[in-house]
Amino acid sequence: MAERLIVVGGDAAGMAAASQARRRRDRDDLEIVAFERGHFTSYSSCGIPYWIGGVVPDRDQLVARDPETFRTSFDIDVRLRHEVTGIDLERREVVARNLAGGGEVRERFDQLVYATGAVPLTPDWARTDADGVFGVQTLDDGAALRDWLDREPTPRRAVVVGGGYIGVEMAEALIKRGLTVDLVEQADQPMSTVDADMAELVSDAMRGIGIGIRTGLTVTGLETRDGRVTAVVTAEGPMPADVVVLGLGVRPNIAVAQAAGLPIGPSGGVRTDRRMRVPGVPGVWAAGDCVETLHRVSGLPVHIPLGTHANKQGRVAGINIGGGYATFPGVIGTAVTKVCDLEVGRTGLRERDAASAGFEFVSVVAESTSRAGYYPGSRPMTVKLLAERPSGRLLGAQIVGWSEAAKRIDTLAVALWNGMTVDEMTSLDLGYAPPYAPVWDPVLIAARKAVDALDRR
Amino acid sequence: MAERLIVVGGDAAGMAAASQARRRRDRDDLEIVAFERGHFTSYSSCGIPYWIGGVVPDRDQLVARDPETFRTSFDIDVRLRHEVTGIDLERREVVARNLAGGGEVRERFDQLVYATGAVPLTPDWARTDADGVFGVQTLDDGAALRDWLDREPTPRRAVVVGGGYIGVEMAEALIKRGLTVDLVEQADQPMSTVDADMAELVSDAMRGIGIGIRTGLTVTGLETRDGRVTAVVTAEGPMPADVVVLGLGVRPNIAVAQAAGLPIGPSGGVRTDRRMRVPGVPGVWAAGDCVETLHRVSGLPVHIPLGTHANKQGRVAGINIGGGYATFPGVIGTAVTKVCDLEVGRTGLRERDAASAGFEFVSVVAESTSRAGYYPGSRPMTVKLLAERPSGRLLGAQIVGWSEAAKRIDTLAVALWNGMTVDEMTSLDLGYAPPYAPVWDPVLIAARKAVDALDRR
Repeated sequence: MAERLIVVGGDAAGMAAASQARRRRDRDDLEIVAFERGHFTSYSSCGIPYWIGGVVPDRDQLVARDPETFRTSFDIDVRLRHEVTGIDLERREVVARNLAGGGEVRERFDQLVYATGAVPLTPDWARTDADGVFGVQTLDDGAALRDWLDREPTPRRAVVVGGGYIGVEMAEALIKRGLTVDLVEQADQPMSTVDADMAELVSDAMRGIGIGIRTGLTVTGLETRDGRVTAVVTAEGPMPADVVVLGLGVRPNIAVAQAAGLPIGPSGGVRTDRRMRVPGVPGVWAAGDCVETLHRVSGLPVHIPLGTHANKQGRVAGINIGGGYATFPGVIGTAVTKVCDLEVGRTGLRERDAASAGFEFVSVVAESTSRAGYYPGSRPMTVKLLAERPSGRLLGAQIVGWSEAAKRIDTLAVALWNGMTVDEMTSLDLGYAPPYAPVWDPVLIAARKAVDALDRR
Repeated sequence: MAERLIVVGGDAAGMAAASQARRRRDRDDLEIVAFERGHFTSYSSCGIPYWIGGVVPDRDQLVARDPETFRTSFDIDVRLRHEVTGIDLERREVVARNLAGGGEVRERFDQLVYATGAVPLTPDWARTDADGVFGVQTLDDGAALRDWLDREPTPRRAVVVGGGYIGVEMAEALIKRGLTVDLVEQADQPMSTVDADMAELVSDAMRGIGIGIRTGLTVTGLETRDGRVTAVVTAEGPMPADVVVLGLGVRPNIAVAQAAGLPIGPSGGVRTDRRMRVPGVPGVWAAGDCVETLHRVSGLPVHIPLGTHANKQGRVAGINIGGGYATFPGVIGTAVTKVCDLEVGRTGLRERDAASAGFEFVSVVAESTSRAGYYPGSRPMTVKLLAERPSGRLLGAQIVGWSEAAKRIDTLAVALWNGMTVDEMTSLDLGYAPPYAPVWDPVLIAARKAVDALDRR
């Protein structure tokens, strides 16, 4: 009799696991059922701000593979609008509620992949019936926001709450749609994924396209009229808003895992080993935004929800379920984003992370250009490096620039991944030609500056 | 009494060495004299095609630091138009000819940096008095070519001989200036720095902008009239030309080194150790396009003339002369170029290199896109990887694409530098956001394909 794999959550991680398992084991050997509570499978939630902003015209472009493809080409029994509400480890069954038709189903499993993703952080004031308040976590969320923006009377004033990647990207998307936009951030700066000096460059660019930035400010409530939001309430008074977008971050969606007794780590995500097995629970795997992972630089467990990790983790789980061997060795916190044509990249530890992990370090900021200074289109680029003292080992890097900047972080990410020192990095054989780099690439200039700062000549 | 450093050759390597030495030792401790046979110091010869093509309007933009800056800010006695003709190791003197004023000078040294660069490969037929035949090795060469192109009657037909980087870049520059351009290449393809399948993409792009490509063809002579070139002669008949540009590559400029008895390696360049000392000759250093270096993947000595290596090697020599410690650990053959908006990157070994170095390997070619498929401006990208079998160790990589392609080679170069396997590479934490990459970066897609090709699941 065929084994039975139940996938809980049909987005990136879950469907990557399912399709990798299927690639190695056919239907007679492994039956696969995937439950997804939403209307879509395998879509790019990172693409939502670009769809809202009109850069990507069509919602369906964000869907990598639709349920029908999984059913016909992968022989995966995808059940949309089914929310798994319980996992019975003893009877090896899941319980799922049919959100569309009503009723409940129970399904037996031999293997289970827990891939429920993350849920947005929602303060009490945002748990409201008022119209005009939106998260942008799921494609369903995005669709609701788009409908609202297209409705009469057309919303004109937006407040974005939270200055992380999604908040900043949404602020830009709404400006592009012609709204007046204020971004409210509790901390001293938006884009706190980079150090304050680098984040300041981002704030400048945001102000440059007309985004109002209010920092050190907390939203405490909403004002409404006729069931529609009219303002957010803050300690400094109300801020008028026809639409409020929440970008306060997310936490792992662990409710069902926790109830079933799966181990939860200190970062709040489901624990796994490097093959994405849930330790101590045979036949149960977890992957994606619901799990915690190892930060390879700090050595600490972290929760970093990101599609690229979800895809990799799902693939690893699927290969292992399929009888192969693959591992997910952790992350180093690489991320890139585009803010008003400004490119931002980061990897590894920020100053505060390095300090709290107990590292001694130097940090340097090097100004350079994207291309040979004389080549047309050469633009300024700022590279920041943190290096352990006295070893010189790279601990983290941040890049802000106007072109060809963000993806240069990959060069630094691979150096960091391999534990290179800044001394070694000054010798790196990187591509040089006038249209692409100065003869000393910005990455190398920064490495040289870090070597000097270590003062070990 | 101060020590005396003589620098032979005032371009990238020599002046990098001089300025690094000066940074660590002041005038009372180290006197520095630099001889340069040309009119310029520290210029970007890689920029010459862009100046010829009009992309860079002004010649002076290519000069990073002029002699006056070196004299006043670095206290370096720069002597232009002085060609060093001999090095007397016993008396520790150099002999230099004054090309401008005539006469000869002898100068004592304690330390010497040999940084004479490279000389173009010039077949017999090109050693001609005829007007209209140009190398593009030096800024003086470039100036002569530009004068010729501006002269009446305006040249209309160009033949570029040699299809390496310079040849291809010059062909494009001449097309940009409105000339009819044919490129003649002895081998089966231009751009033989990448494998044939990847080079074919480059040839297609060149044909696309109207460059005529003649492969498997050797130029054997010139036809002239009234002292001007009118055609190149080939086995397939004459090809009309008002201007002929030589891009046949270069060899290390070792004449003086050889006469002085400095050791020359099998690649034809001056040998050095990793601190850029010439072994067995105390106080003598060498750097730049005249030296040979270690290829870290093949383990073989190679001659790879490139400004970025010259700068690094010069810096290393200068730090060591200055009393510091620095090493140049070799190269991996990374190079990038732009051909008619097509971006080309390569690092490590090509198939023929890997085979001749004795490696067993798999090679894969992965098609992908520069950005998320749905994000505007996403363009095709082709990534080729070579991985050792069965270890999976990366041996080489090539990228061809229409945007954001060339510098992605750096990610692969750092992986290669660190001896990563393609298996390890599939886990790499690279930057992901829709404007910059698909959720699986092209680099990762290629690594996955290589893992599959190794067939070790």
